[in-house]
Amino acid sequence: MINIALLGAGRIGQMHAKIISDTANSKLSYVFDVYQPAAEKVAEQYNAIVADDVEVILSDERVDAVLIATSTDTHVDLIIKAAKAGKAILCEKPIDLSTERVQQCWQEIESCNVPIQIGFNRRFDPTHANLQQQLAEGAIGNLQQLIITSRDPDIAPTEYLRHSGGIFRDMIIHDFDMLRFITGEEALEIHAIGNTLIDPGLAEFNDVDSVMITIKTQSGRLCHINGSRRCVYGYDQRIEAFGGEGMLQSTNPLPHNVVKSTAADTASQSVLNPFFIERYQSAYQAQFASFINALISGAAPSPSFEDGLEAQKMADAAQLSLQTGKTVSL
Amino acid sequence: MINIALLGAGRIGQMHAKIISDTANSKLSYVFDVYQPAAEKVAEQYNAIVADDVEVILSDERVDAVLIATSTDTHVDLIIKAAKAGKAILCEKPIDLSTERVQQCWQEIESCNVPIQIGFNRRFDPTHANLQQQLAEGAIGNLQQLIITSRDPDIAPTEYLRHSGGIFRDMIIHDFDMLRFITGEEALEIHAIGNTLIDPGLAEFNDVDSVMITIKTQSGRLCHINGSRRCVYGYDQRIEAFGGEGMLQSTNPLPHNVVKSTAADTASQSVLNPFFIERYQSAYQAQFASFINALISGAAPSPSFEDGLEAQKMADAAQLSLQTGKTVSL
Amino acid sequence: MINIALLGAGRIGQMHAKIISDTANSKLSYVFDVYQPAAEKVAEQYNAIVADDVEVILSDERVDAVLIATSTDTHVDLIIKAAKAGKAILCEKPIDLSTERVQQCWQEIESCNVPIQIGFNRRFDPTHANLQQQLAEGAIGNLQQLIITSRDPDIAPTEYLRHSGGIFRDMIIHDFDMLRFITGEEALEIHAIGNTLIDPGLAEFNDVDSVMITIKTQSGRLCHINGSRRCVYGYDQRIEAFGGEGMLQSTNPLPHNVVKSTAADTASQSVLNPFFIERYQSAYQAQFASFINALISGAAPSPSFEDGLEAQKMADAAQLSLQTGKTVSL
Amino acid sequence: MINIALLGAGRIGQMHAKIISDTANSKLSYVFDVYQPAAEKVAEQYNAIVADDVEVILSDERVDAVLIATSTDTHVDLIIKAAKAGKAILCEKPIDLSTERVQQCWQEIESCNVPIQIGFNRRFDPTHANLQQQLAEGAIGNLQQLIITSRDPDIAPTEYLRHSGGIFRDMIIHDFDMLRFITGEEALEIHAIGNTLIDPGLAEFNDVDSVMITIKTQSGRLCHINGSRRCVYGYDQRIEAFGGEGMLQSTNPLPHNVVKSTAADTASQSVLNPFFIERYQSAYQAQFASFINALISGAAPSPSFEDGLEAQKMADAAQLSLQTGKTVSL
Repeated sequence: MINIALLGAGRIGQMHAKIISDTANSKLSYVFDVYQPAAEKVAEQYNAIVADDVEVILSDERVDAVLIATSTDTHVDLIIKAAKAGKAILCEKPIDLSTERVQQCWQEIESCNVPIQIGFNRRFDPTHANLQQQLAEGAIGNLQQLIITSRDPDIAPTEYLRHSGGIFRDMIIHDFDMLRFITGEEALEIHAIGNTLIDPGLAEFNDVDSVMITIKTQSGRLCHINGSRRCVYGYDQRIEAFGGEGMLQSTNPLPHNVVKSTAADTASQSVLNPFFIERYQSAYQAQFASFINALISGAAPSPSFEDGLEAQKMADAAQLSLQTGKTVSL
Repeated sequence: MINIALLGAGRIGQMHAKIISDTANSKLSYVFDVYQPAAEKVAEQYNAIVADDVEVILSDERVDAVLIATSTDTHVDLIIKAAKAGKAILCEKPIDLSTERVQQCWQEIESCNVPIQIGFNRRFDPTHANLQQQLAEGAIGNLQQLIITSRDPDIAPTEYLRHSGGIFRDMIIHDFDMLRFITGEEALEIHAIGNTLIDPGLAEFNDVDSVMITIKTQSGRLCHINGSRRCVYGYDQRIEAFGGEGMLQSTNPLPHNVVKSTAADTASQSVLNPFFIERYQSAYQAQFASFINALISGAAPSPSFEDGLEAQKMADAAQLSLQTGKTVSL
Repeated sequence: MINIALLGAGRIGQMHAKIISDTANSKLSYVFDVYQPAAEKVAEQYNAIVADDVEVILSDERVDAVLIATSTDTHVDLIIKAAKAGKAILCEKPIDLSTERVQQCWQEIESCNVPIQIGFNRRFDPTHANLQQQLAEGAIGNLQQLIITSRDPDIAPTEYLRHSGGIFRDMIIHDFDMLRFITGEEALEIHAIGNTLIDPGLAEFNDVDSVMITIKTQSGRLCHINGSRRCVYGYDQRIEAFGGEGMLQSTNPLPHNVVKSTAADTASQSVLNPFFIERYQSAYQAQFASFINALISGAAPSPSFEDGLEAQKMADAAQLSLQTGKTVSL
Repeated sequence: MINIALLGAGRIGQMHAKIISDTANSKLSYVFDVYQPAAEKVAEQYNAIVADDVEVILSDERVDAVLIATSTDTHVDLIIKAAKAGKAILCEKPIDLSTERVQQCWQEIESCNVPIQIGFNRRFDPTHANLQQQLAEGAIGNLQQLIITSRDPDIAPTEYLRHSGGIFRDMIIHDFDMLRFITGEEALEIHAIGNTLIDPGLAEFNDVDSVMITIKTQSGRLCHINGSRRCVYGYDQRIEAFGGEGMLQSTNPLPHNVVKSTAADTASQSVLNPFFIERYQSAYQAQFASFINALISGAAPSPSFEDGLEAQKMADAAQLSLQTGKTVSL
């Protein structure tokens, strides 16, 4: 049995608490949150202990691993402390908004040699994962072009976005990781355009809500990501891989499968999932099971800290391209 | 060049005139209609001659074939006359509402040995025909169950239906033919239920507008036909063949392929084709080309007169089952 | 907290144990199985007590309800005992293979007034349930025709089927319940045909593996069920409701949503779910949550014992029609 | 009746000859081709006259219009001659590979005031046209992002492509026109990347076979085009328009609609249309009917000469971006 301490008991932390509790060979032992009533509520539900501070958790030898689901600005600090205490780590993305700080973090923890996994949950989505696997098995020959569609259901308030690090670091970072996961290689050049087609207020702090990114990989493949902060028909997450012998498309699952035909049209009677917690529920479960399995087997967890760092660098390059209008080489 | 005389210049006759004119190796030479202005209009459009009566056509040696698209009650008479004049015949379905009369017709014309084809156009629909071909090639192993869906867009006026011969002889006869075409065998037993769920006025003359038919074939396959006189979302014509190694479905084509996703749903933005002339346009073209090719090559045209007769017998059996509530053996 | 005793720890019992444990306000307290090691394994996993015999469970006042997942021939006995002990009951379908015995059971327990629910789980499937709800809300006007497709992935061994009660009582009973659930009314007439197209050995004990059933409801609607014991492409469970203003179709969900286009074709890269435990997982969860909610709120659980009885009567009628070739009135 | 002279009797000219002949109010009067036997074959089929040279056609007063389907390098010359002879013109795209020459052409013919239409047939495709119309009617609110997928079934021989003008002027020009047609505005900035992922031999003359283009329009919308010279699953032509209130997708039509389910998967049993003549058959018909209607009504034909010029400028900009790696402003 792997004992897990959950750091952060907000919306996503609550989801993780249930997953920790439902997963075989895993037990929720501690919950910590700066807002203690939130921690108490979760702890009670799953018979865990509320920790007054993180030190209590890190000094308890029975704790095997921490799941970090706190606010982004606290991630690096908690990773360093947990690594030094010898705990395994599953940390929500992004590691930090500053790539420099992510690199410093790595220097501090590398020698600790603790297992560490970054929460790029989409790699575990049954449909995306199947596409990646088929591609790797040669189902469509050599990959030539990749198109990722990434549209959030609705935009956050302007004031929240002001501190989000920008659309590339906050949202599209998932798609940069997906591109690395599917192509199995690094970006060579990145070009990005964007605009405030949804919330003009973002212009004040040089952010945008609609983007199109073109990426050439090191081996010369052509990739495209399109992203939008608002999509009225739901959380639209698709991948299209085009190769020498065919095409693979990862399409959106639907909550139910009723089709209605009337004099007007024939309609799939189900809108897309509202957001990531519903859409990627099974991905979050599989992600955590993968973490537990790595800890039990002694394998290195994946995606790794380095995966988190590389996606970050792509976000930085896209941001630079957006601001300068130029293609950025990596 | 095959010279065709068109008998009947109503809606379906006009469609045939254009097809005759567009088809390679075929020429529209005469048009006849009891309502002469209709014949004149069509004749003018395609540079054909208006015939005052059918005898003019049948005595003209240059005429190779007649296409009979007149009202059903005139079919037998015209078939007999044309056969005796040595003309090839393409006759719209049904041959006649009375199976006895169809059989008498056959006795009269059998010795004439003229090529004769019955207008079961659906056999030539690209999608239905592909299903039949794949099935014949063993794509799903041995056929076990067959389901045919047959829904007209809207019901005709009660007074028209009073003289239609009933839903089985007038409408479902196409589906009986389709069943024979796809299974390649004859019905052993037929059971039918029906009701007036659309037009209660049909009850007065023992007709119905909604039917479900179950048929066991001679080799023991199970078949189902469901039919409706009104379908608000268009002309719904589907076939599902279920076999030991899979399933083939012939689904409805759409006039265009735009898909719209909104906050409400994701909809195929195209309703089905309004009715048979639009839906089966390419089937009518292929049917006529097949007739011309048979005449040129000397092959027997198909579907044959006997095919027309056998579908008729199934319609009679279904009608009897509907009235008695019993399973009817053939 | 509702304390549940699980009777039967086979494959479906194990599934129920996990659901009992995962559902809010529910606790697995006892497990019983005639093969005690099976009970022990489940009990250990969920911290429940193994009961040596059923009496221990029924005499423990802390037990609120029993979930009966034993073999069919023990259901009636266990229902009567549990009802007399004042326990609420959730019983897997069918209640018993003999309708007479089901009726006797009812006479014995009616006065006990315990909440009792029959395991027609499909009513809780998100897609089927949405179809039923939309229909009830008038989405397609008045229902005219209903078509249910019910195909199991693979046939059980002949020796197992010899004692199954026949395809109608063992398998199609779910579809009879679905018909009642969706139409909201009872059958007036039933007609069935069948054949041994998959396992000829069934003929020895008058069973079949392929069936087509036609049903007219009391208000005159037309319904069709087609069933097969083997379907190579997976567990095929669809419903099509046709009404005066449109059509609703409940289609099969897929385990993942990758589409592959190659020179051969464009394919949904996911076969259907292998069988009921995978396909109806969320239905089983919702079914149990509904049972718990009924116990807490004091509402009558649904589907009821009577629902179980009525579906049984339809199975008997279908069996009689199959044997006699006649339409059976109910 | 509009009398049409066809210039060019190659593969596409033969297609146009049939359309001219089938279209109401239109008559094929002359056929010209530098290879006279080709002209003779077409002329015979449609009862037209073979012209020894173009002058014969242009000096015949009965000729109302010319349809130019000759090789690209002859277009400008023929346009100028026809315009000066007062003939209406329908010219295949592109007008010329040199934008400068297109502009010179316009200076020569502007004062002739003859109706002139450029063969951007895709604007007349039922599905693309429906998307454009719905968008114009506000079906998805304000357009924010546009994605065009353009994949040819197979690459032409290297030697042919050497003289094609490059992928942007030869192939993607259709997509540039589509972008202008759908957005209703001009490009502001173009960025293109490409590679030789299919035929490395193209590198010799600085051409590519795989491209991704990003375009910002004057109002700030974000557009993406992806193109490939080889697509094994057929001629893949899709459009996705994303707006504030939803998404419209123009998907590929299929030659037939059979779906096959087996133990492996569920497949649309129809590959895409092989190439443009099959896929855009109805678009070519509608394009020509639109030209004839414009001539009869006196309206200006559309798409216009200017539309041809603007798409050309976009192709030049994309070529420049590909070569320099920079974003090109228009």
